Amino acid sequence: KMLRRVLCTVLFMGALPSLADVSQGHISVVLLGATGDLAKKYLWQGLFQLYMDQVSSGHSFTFHGAALTALEPGQRLMFDVLKKLACPPDESPNRCAVLKDQFLKLSQYHQLKTAENYTVLNREIETLLRQEGLKEAGRIFYFSVPPFAYTEIARHINSSCRPPPGAWLRVVLEKPFGHDLESAQQLAAELTSFFREEEMYRVDHYLGKQAVAHILPFRDQNRQFLDPIWNRHHVERVEIVLKETVDAKGRTSFYEQYGVIRDVLQNHLTEALMFLTMELPGNVSRAEEVLQCKLQAFQSLRGLEKNNAVLGQYQAYASQVREELQKAQDYISTTPTFAGVLIHSDNLRWEGVPFLLTSGKALDERVGYVRVLFKNRAYCTQSETLRDAGHSQCKAKQIIFYIGHGVLNTPAVLVSRNLFRPVMPEGSWKEAVGQSELHVFGQPLSDYYVYSPVKERDAYSVLISNIYHGRKDFFITTENLLASWGFWTPLLDSISQQTLRLYPGGVENQHLLDFEMVSGEVAFTLTEPVQLLNPNRLMPSDYGAIQSKFRQSPLVSAWSEDLISQLASDIEKTASRTVAHSGQFHLALSGGSSPVVLFQRLARHHYAFPWKHTHIWLVDERCVPLTDTESNFFSLHKHLLQGVRVPYFNIHPMPVHLNQRLCVEEDRGTELYAKEILALVANASFDLVLLGVGTDGHTASLFPQSENGLEGAQTVVLTESPVKPHQRMSLSLPLINKARQVFVLVLGKGKHDIMTLLSRVGHKPRKWPVSGVSPSSGQLVWYVDYEALLG
Amino acid sequence: KMLRRVLCTVLFMGALPSLADVSQGHISVVLLGATGDLAKKYLWQGLFQLYMDQVSSGHSFTFHGAALTALEPGQRLMFDVLKKLACPPDESPNRCAVLKDQFLKLSQYHQLKTAENYTVLNREIETLLRQEGLKEAGRIFYFSVPPFAYTEIARHINSSCRPPPGAWLRVVLEKPFGHDLESAQQLAAELTSFFREEEMYRVDHYLGKQAVAHILPFRDQNRQFLDPIWNRHHVERVEIVLKETVDAKGRTSFYEQYGVIRDVLQNHLTEALMFLTMELPGNVSRAEEVLQCKLQAFQSLRGLEKNNAVLGQYQAYASQVREELQKAQDYISTTPTFAGVLIHSDNLRWEGVPFLLTSGKALDERVGYVRVLFKNRAYCTQSETLRDAGHSQCKAKQIIFYIGHGVLNTPAVLVSRNLFRPVMPEGSWKEAVGQSELHVFGQPLSDYYVYSPVKERDAYSVLISNIYHGRKDFFITTENLLASWGFWTPLLDSISQQTLRLYPGGVENQHLLDFEMVSGEVAFTLTEPVQLLNPNRLMPSDYGAIQSKFRQSPLVSAWSEDLISQLASDIEKTASRTVAHSGQFHLALSGGSSPVVLFQRLARHHYAFPWKHTHIWLVDERCVPLTDTESNFFSLHKHLLQGVRVPYFNIHPMPVHLNQRLCVEEDRGTELYAKEILALVANASFDLVLLGVGTDGHTASLFPQSENGLEGAQTVVLTESPVKPHQRMSLSLPLINKARQVFVLVLGKGKHDIMTLLSRVGHKPRKWPVSGVSPSSGQLVWYVDYEALLG
Repeated sequence: KMLRRVLCTVLFMGALPSLADVSQGHISVVLLGATGDLAKKYLWQGLFQLYMDQVSSGHSFTFHGAALTALEPGQRLMFDVLKKLACPPDESPNRCAVLKDQFLKLSQYHQLKTAENYTVLNREIETLLRQEGLKEAGRIFYFSVPPFAYTEIARHINSSCRPPPGAWLRVVLEKPFGHDLESAQQLAAELTSFFREEEMYRVDHYLGKQAVAHILPFRDQNRQFLDPIWNRHHVERVEIVLKETVDAKGRTSFYEQYGVIRDVLQNHLTEALMFLTMELPGNVSRAEEVLQCKLQAFQSLRGLEKNNAVLGQYQAYASQVREELQKAQDYISTTPTFAGVLIHSDNLRWEGVPFLLTSGKALDERVGYVRVLFKNRAYCTQSETLRDAGHSQCKAKQIIFYIGHGVLNTPAVLVSRNLFRPVMPEGSWKEAVGQSELHVFGQPLSDYYVYSPVKERDAYSVLISNIYHGRKDFFITTENLLASWGFWTPLLDSISQQTLRLYPGGVENQHLLDFEMVSGEVAFTLTEPVQLLNPNRLMPSDYGAIQSKFRQSPLVSAWSEDLISQLASDIEKTASRTVAHSGQFHLALSGGSSPVVLFQRLARHHYAFPWKHTHIWLVDERCVPLTDTESNFFSLHKHLLQGVRVPYFNIHPMPVHLNQRLCVEEDRGTELYAKEILALVANASFDLVLLGVGTDGHTASLFPQSENGLEGAQTVVLTESPVKPHQRMSLSLPLINKARQVFVLVLGKGKHDIMTLLSRVGHKPRKWPVSGVSPSSGQLVWYVDYEALLG
Repeated sequence: KMLRRVLCTVLFMGALPSLADVSQGHISVVLLGATGDLAKKYLWQGLFQLYMDQVSSGHSFTFHGAALTALEPGQRLMFDVLKKLACPPDESPNRCAVLKDQFLKLSQYHQLKTAENYTVLNREIETLLRQEGLKEAGRIFYFSVPPFAYTEIARHINSSCRPPPGAWLRVVLEKPFGHDLESAQQLAAELTSFFREEEMYRVDHYLGKQAVAHILPFRDQNRQFLDPIWNRHHVERVEIVLKETVDAKGRTSFYEQYGVIRDVLQNHLTEALMFLTMELPGNVSRAEEVLQCKLQAFQSLRGLEKNNAVLGQYQAYASQVREELQKAQDYISTTPTFAGVLIHSDNLRWEGVPFLLTSGKALDERVGYVRVLFKNRAYCTQSETLRDAGHSQCKAKQIIFYIGHGVLNTPAVLVSRNLFRPVMPEGSWKEAVGQSELHVFGQPLSDYYVYSPVKERDAYSVLISNIYHGRKDFFITTENLLASWGFWTPLLDSISQQTLRLYPGGVENQHLLDFEMVSGEVAFTLTEPVQLLNPNRLMPSDYGAIQSKFRQSPLVSAWSEDLISQLASDIEKTASRTVAHSGQFHLALSGGSSPVVLFQRLARHHYAFPWKHTHIWLVDERCVPLTDTESNFFSLHKHLLQGVRVPYFNIHPMPVHLNQRLCVEEDRGTELYAKEILALVANASFDLVLLGVGTDGHTASLFPQSENGLEGAQTVVLTESPVKPHQRMSLSLPLINKARQVFVLVLGKGKHDIMTLLSRVGHKPRKWPVSGVSPSSGQLVWYVDYEALLG
């Protein structure tokens, strides 16, 4: 009451600039969680800043702190915070003192616990406005509370605290917004039942960081320079990084449930990624256009798999969790506190460019940045020691959005001087002059054009100002949020059992957390130097390949990785020898999952393979269009043919799809293929046939009891598979047995039983078709991994 | 002392040292051009070194200097050189003095001018050997004479100076070995009429440089480390560089005819390139295996065009030429003294990796090196200032074969410490210790493992030793030589009228000679800052493409080269726009010769082309198998498809070859193609159709008076051509006119008449089928070069 009287007095006595100015109406700001950490640290200061900035805007304000705490102690707690509010350095101390005094008088504490409390708050606001004869402009409810409280508060606001028609409602929500796609969808659905999309302001405070907020405007204002180079031809890599020195101590009850990916990558770093990769909208300040481009950019991201991430945990974390959460001594946490993730976009602009997102706690320094590194395409004839400084095209070319902390200790935008002098908005960014001899990203600061904000502003001040201005492009829409969770959830699911690298923390980490990209995946650079969670697994390379006999034929056995590399070399050797001898090499390949790793290995490691002289045939095919992902040829194309240069004429998919029909007898696809083989392969004798074995003993698409293909003169046959898709085309057993060489590849524990059986049975092709493989004048070799051989 | 006396008698009385030791027989070395520059500077020293090394080998030696000069003055000139021979620092001064004395006594001058002179020389050698009772091991003839003298000398040696059966002949030839492919072939043919291939030792003294000679052994001995990384996935670029500070003063009579490409790139740098790119033979010391791999590597090199090179000339060169060659004051030399050339190999191992060959005179420093720079695939989590020195994976990774001079001033092999510790042969290379604070290629020397030769040896000493040992792998075979000229000659032809950038010379050059790669071509980084040679010649690009109208449709016209590049960009733009809009791009291409240049340009310059989403269709096809060189598809495959990555499923050749028959009505190939189009192309409306025009006005394979395809409902038709092969398959005019866009490309003087005619006639498809091209709702654009347009 006392406060209210003061407030009323303020309004009446003209301590406010002038009532004539409040023509824009009154805004009530309600801060829920007014005595919490975030409020103490940032939000009240942001609200005070808003007041200072907007006191002459024509709006009048009141500020309502709210919490569960009872009035008396809550009030005391809150005003302890308010009294400590700082005056910004660019504000005159006198004006600030006056405004702070006013701000305190316009602020009030409320206990908001029951439905009744909300009704009372609403009545008080209405009464005040009526008494003062003020028009209501809008209400801001800022949720600085744990997410479990969201739904109830939202319900109360919706039912009791909506402003009258004509005034707006803005509810501000703080993360976490769910835990994965499903929980985020659920939370979003609940909120949507109380608020309209345009009423919700989801905060990602990174969008309030000045350097992050400037990425899109920078791209827009420097289109003329960036248009030719903002693509895969010029960009070598992009790094988006948030490193912290602090650890999770004192916050493990939150952190243990979330981990670094949910805490930082899914939101902050992803938003920066979007600003970089999205196509530029025509107008970058129109929230709807930006959103559409962003959603498209999400669609282009290549799905993440577990090998796209490296994960770590600082050593002290587990004991902190045990202590703070009262866990048993043998409790092991699988929550990562460090992550490096390699992301690719399949957008044509970015195809092949690595985007590296990295964040972690207990690291060597506190810093955040977005770094775009360009390719060096120059050769500098003058020797480096005799070159003019600063103008060489051979120096690294980079654009860096420096978010803060680190060596610069200020937000900044850096552009290498050998790129271009950027256009920067004069009012808000200034060129940094008189730079010290700092080195940033391998180069002296003098190699860059450096810009820093004219007025450095805290992220929350920026965001609160944008809430006031209704700038929705600074906030996360529901669609955006769900797109991000949709992208991250598969990775989060796949790594839930992933091993974590333990790291000591701080500068002691040294190179322990460095990682490298290898064929689109990432791995730590140093091989395990210290203990791992889940250790003790023997690596395949610890064993050599065993050479022996299986069913009277040579057997090569090893762990699958070694086996595949042995098989790939053997195929290459056969190919080179055959091409040297006869000028061409006819290779018939099977479908299924086992050969995929082989195909990849052949594509990536066998540069001397005589592909130009190799003909590729299919051993069998499913009766689906070749472009169907189920097609054997599709998989062969994706994993092998796409990566090598076999002439078009040498590629021979099976004609399962003729006249827009699949494997219809009358279309005579089998005859067509048989003729093609006869026409090109001398004596219809393939140089090499690669087979697999099914758990039922089938090989190629020749299944037990098959009517076709196990014997007889037909060389290519239609068969029926017991599993879908049922219809198949296959080379026949007699044709396979004409080959000069047949390799049978068998991988995995699942094949152990059939292999055991096969080791005992004789020639019974009707029962186990693979037992009929026995080249009449060629050689048969079994490639069986330890798991299939030994179980 | 005894030895000396005996030696004294060698020449005058006829007795050789300790006959017991010379069981291997006698070797006569004849140095032709014994008083020339090369002989003075290197060859005599090399022969003396050979003598020192081999004095106890079991061979005896005599050394015969020869020149055109008469005996008396020649002898004096030669012995003036011999007296100044230096003792190597690793030789004891006493032993060296003794050996030098012997060497002088074993040496003799001959005038070799007439046929008679050669006969006399031969008789003297025979007499000496008979008198001493020595078996003849072999004869070495070292040609240190201008190339025009080769043939005559060769004829004389062949007819008068061959050693008796059982002894070998080795003739050593110095470059230049021709001036282009034709002259090299001619010279080679002449030499081959006198000598067998195994008798010829063509010197490229770079093969005697210790660092160059070690490239192959290094690759061989470090296979385990290099196998995974010696390929396009890991190598970012390769630089092969020979920079000189001297200019051509005093040598312009030679230099003006050759220039830097023939002088340095065609031979020295190309050999280094081959050692880097060739597949490793099983045994790197077997000359024949090495040669085969080298020839294969030559085959993989992508052909050079003029935009693959940047060329310069130091400013003083022209006046030096005018002075030394007594040219008029307005004489302009077009000989480059600087060249930077970008080379690509189409071998799968190296696809896309830029090889930059650079050499020039009057540059800032004297240095030679081969530098392999690897891609940085690491992200280092620790900040650069807090990292352990030397072990970071984020530092540049390089392997450098340092040929000599420069900051190191010694041959060396450098391997970045974050790559691997190389295996080096202990006897001949030693690890350099106590390195100073030198910086090499952007890094302190301490970042590398550095090896230098145990014994630094001059290239000619190495080569002479290899001639003695018969190590042919250190020399250039005829096949190798012709392969190299075959590679360089098209570039040399195409740049004969190229403008050269003038440079002041020395450190003044600054960034004037820096160059950059852009879409597979190179260009100087700085735009013309100073005057050019041939400033008055207008370049095609000085004319913009003319935009106008032809037959009421837009016309683009330019010189053919510019026209093609404009057309290629327009196609790419259409493709990107279409893919962005509808996800795929259906492109129908014509056969014939005009599009070949376009195909090549698309394959090599348009990396951003959305091939992955492009479908390739044929406008027309000849009724021949697809693998026939006459087939349109074959040409399309060779010039375009082979170089890009269009998915197999998106390639749609015309089915002219069904059931092993060509274009038989009953095989219904036209129906098949029509169905395929209908199934995949929305509304059967191609996104872009590229057509040509015949001199008779035909387009696609629609000829005047054709019964099929000019009208009616059939979309794909069989037609008859007036020229062989007569049978054709073609899209019909009505189908073509459904396209969204039709581009007609017309090139060359031969098309001028028909173009003139077409500019006057209306819609007369029966007479001139191309006049019927008129897309009903699409756009038609004519691309006509100046020759076709203006005659």
